[in-house]
Amino acid sequence: MYERIKGFRDFYPGAMAAHRAVRDEVESTVGRYGFREIATPAIERTQLYVDKSGEEIVEELYSFTDHGGREVSLTPELTPTVARMVVEKQQELSKPIKWYSTRPFWRYEEPQQGRFREFYQTNVDIFGSSAPESDAEILAVAADALTGLGLDGDDFEFRVSHRDILGGVLRSMDADVDVAAAIRAVDKSEKLERVEYHNLLVDAGLDLASAEAFADLLAEGDLDAVVDFAGTDEVAAAVENLRAVLAATEDFGAREYCTLSLDTARGLDYYTGVVFECFDSTGEVGRAVFGGGRYDDLIESFGGQPTPAVGFAVGVMNSTLPLLLQRAGVWPEEAVSTDYYVLSVGDTREVAAGVARDLRARGHVVETDVAGRSFGAQMGYADSINAETVVIVGERDLENGEVTVKEMASGDQTAVPLEAFPGERQRPTYDDYV
Amino acid sequence: MYERIKGFRDFYPGAMAAHRAVRDEVESTVGRYGFREIATPAIERTQLYVDKSGEEIVEELYSFTDHGGREVSLTPELTPTVARMVVEKQQELSKPIKWYSTRPFWRYEEPQQGRFREFYQTNVDIFGSSAPESDAEILAVAADALTGLGLDGDDFEFRVSHRDILGGVLRSMDADVDVAAAIRAVDKSEKLERVEYHNLLVDAGLDLASAEAFADLLAEGDLDAVVDFAGTDEVAAAVENLRAVLAATEDFGAREYCTLSLDTARGLDYYTGVVFECFDSTGEVGRAVFGGGRYDDLIESFGGQPTPAVGFAVGVMNSTLPLLLQRAGVWPEEAVSTDYYVLSVGDTREVAAGVARDLRARGHVVETDVAGRSFGAQMGYADSINAETVVIVGERDLENGEVTVKEMASGDQTAVPLEAFPGERQRPTYDDYV
Repeated sequence: MYERIKGFRDFYPGAMAAHRAVRDEVESTVGRYGFREIATPAIERTQLYVDKSGEEIVEELYSFTDHGGREVSLTPELTPTVARMVVEKQQELSKPIKWYSTRPFWRYEEPQQGRFREFYQTNVDIFGSSAPESDAEILAVAADALTGLGLDGDDFEFRVSHRDILGGVLRSMDADVDVAAAIRAVDKSEKLERVEYHNLLVDAGLDLASAEAFADLLAEGDLDAVVDFAGTDEVAAAVENLRAVLAATEDFGAREYCTLSLDTARGLDYYTGVVFECFDSTGEVGRAVFGGGRYDDLIESFGGQPTPAVGFAVGVMNSTLPLLLQRAGVWPEEAVSTDYYVLSVGDTREVAAGVARDLRARGHVVETDVAGRSFGAQMGYADSINAETVVIVGERDLENGEVTVKEMASGDQTAVPLEAFPGERQRPTYDDYV
Repeated sequence: MYERIKGFRDFYPGAMAAHRAVRDEVESTVGRYGFREIATPAIERTQLYVDKSGEEIVEELYSFTDHGGREVSLTPELTPTVARMVVEKQQELSKPIKWYSTRPFWRYEEPQQGRFREFYQTNVDIFGSSAPESDAEILAVAADALTGLGLDGDDFEFRVSHRDILGGVLRSMDADVDVAAAIRAVDKSEKLERVEYHNLLVDAGLDLASAEAFADLLAEGDLDAVVDFAGTDEVAAAVENLRAVLAATEDFGAREYCTLSLDTARGLDYYTGVVFECFDSTGEVGRAVFGGGRYDDLIESFGGQPTPAVGFAVGVMNSTLPLLLQRAGVWPEEAVSTDYYVLSVGDTREVAAGVARDLRARGHVVETDVAGRSFGAQMGYADSINAETVVIVGERDLENGEVTVKEMASGDQTAVPLEAFPGERQRPTYDDYV
């Protein structure tokens, strides 16, 4: 007997039905905003990730040398791939470019609750706009996807921050501070003791008093105070941009889900402007559910023309989102559903198959016997697939030109003339014949 | 600038829209037959493939050692994975098990037209039935998927054969013949000169006269003659089974697409009963479009209880199917579509955003400005995304409580009171207001 690989997961039909419903809802929301689906390769050159994140990233990648001698990796995230795609066709693509896709990614990390080595994300990005409306549309479509799944404003919040506020304040305090390291410290701060957090800021180049002042300033979250504290045009502009984005979320119907949270920073280095993370408002799901933000420099760093960009990625399978949906009681039922089972006993296959085809032509999910089984075995199977209606095509009934229509929930059944089932009806049930 | 890896493909929105339409149609047909979606890992232990196909398979695999020392491979096909999944839960799963899934697979082969190193298949399988109805349902659902895509009986044919006829005849001729090797020769026969084909059969252990007689018997395709030639119960039973399957396809509405073709064998060793391949009837697409068949021994060879199985896999992206659909003129248009573009000029964002949200709430694909652009730039963008209707929200119009509704195809436009758009209408267009 062979075993599944650690950190990977098989989805059987019941669980899959729930996950697919979630994925379809997210994709349908995103599609209504005019994001267009793309599809991308499962592997890229390892260099793509090393250039962006350094050699140490290889420890987290599924990387190998292919038979042609290429150093390649299973893609750990989508952003470098879409950046490559934008660069490749930047002349032909009309801006703004609005793309989405859903597919698995792979990271060699220690599995934990809601974290697998293979996980499925829907990635949503806008390229070619630096206007606050593009950040706001990303926040709005993310919020709509969650409310479409049955969540409301009491269930989740988007903690919104701005990389240029964090970086700008740091630069106003000490021109030599390692901004990327300090921002990584902010990103980890919620999980750290106060002293540890301050020490990481000191490691990044701040003196202890400055580290404490910086941490207090972010925690306070007063934008006017931030502008005064820094006293630089950079920070004033960043605060203005953040306020403009929040104002646009008002028009776009997403302001109520947004909380100003300067302690939020996002882990990846490539972010440049507004960033956000989605959290469970109750705190029961302790980690960020997903996040996103602006990354205006990435396309250029990949050899493209300067192209602003903003986006988010939400994990739709093997991720934290199912934990939030379960906590909120809106996780879809993990079960298969079936509209009709057409039960054939005796020499009735031709008629039963015809009934099944008629019902399928009307768009219904219809099973019929493919195993030559007894009445009882077929009835048990119909029950196991949650058939709503069973149409019994028996030899005796057929002699009278009839079939039996059985409502599985109640067990009620009635004989119906064959020509009346389905007849002209779009979705005939027991109730139509009594 | 980074490059895509050879044999892999980026799908941009236009091409993706067409491929997604094909995939959705196939999945929807399969779903109506009551096949249930599953999802499976992208990697499996390499041993799974080596045990089944021998060490030489590794040359065709993307295989590597992960950071945990596991020998793993990107999955080159689904069947071993689903067999593993059936074995793992064989006690809980009610039979017949009917599963489908769509996802990429990977093989290190030389790319050619319709063949990539990464290709997407929808796999469809029934486990737990050896009845002819299960083979027939596989043929019927495959045929329905193709007719659902717009093909008809003049466009494609299923060449149907039977492994136990081929193997049984071989065994009746010479008990020591290498049946697997001879069947691989049959599988290749269409691409071979007659002499080469005969030589391969001789290599498999037949004498030349027997090889010629065997080849002629298959080419003739007369089932009575085959039974007489072999004179064994095995072949008589196999012929009876094949006839029963074809009779069932009659009831299931798929007989017209099936052609008896004993020269068809399928390449993989694990097939045991009925096998089939789909071909372009015009011959313009020269290779098999897809295929499938019965594999009754695989689950047991994976350590499970004996479980009959039958299925097929159709390539929905990076495969031969698009070539057939293009040849037949039914390939979906490679373009994005947009119901509405809401154009905002001047200080009208709040109203424009409200209109866009109202239209999205009705299920439409709606874009609006996220880049702060001019009237002309927005109009050009609306045209580039094939917007059907543009709703212009301008400052002047708004002062009169109006918006302008423009039909893009004709260029006709009219002023409409804001409260009437969308108002009570589900899908308002220019025609509704003139």
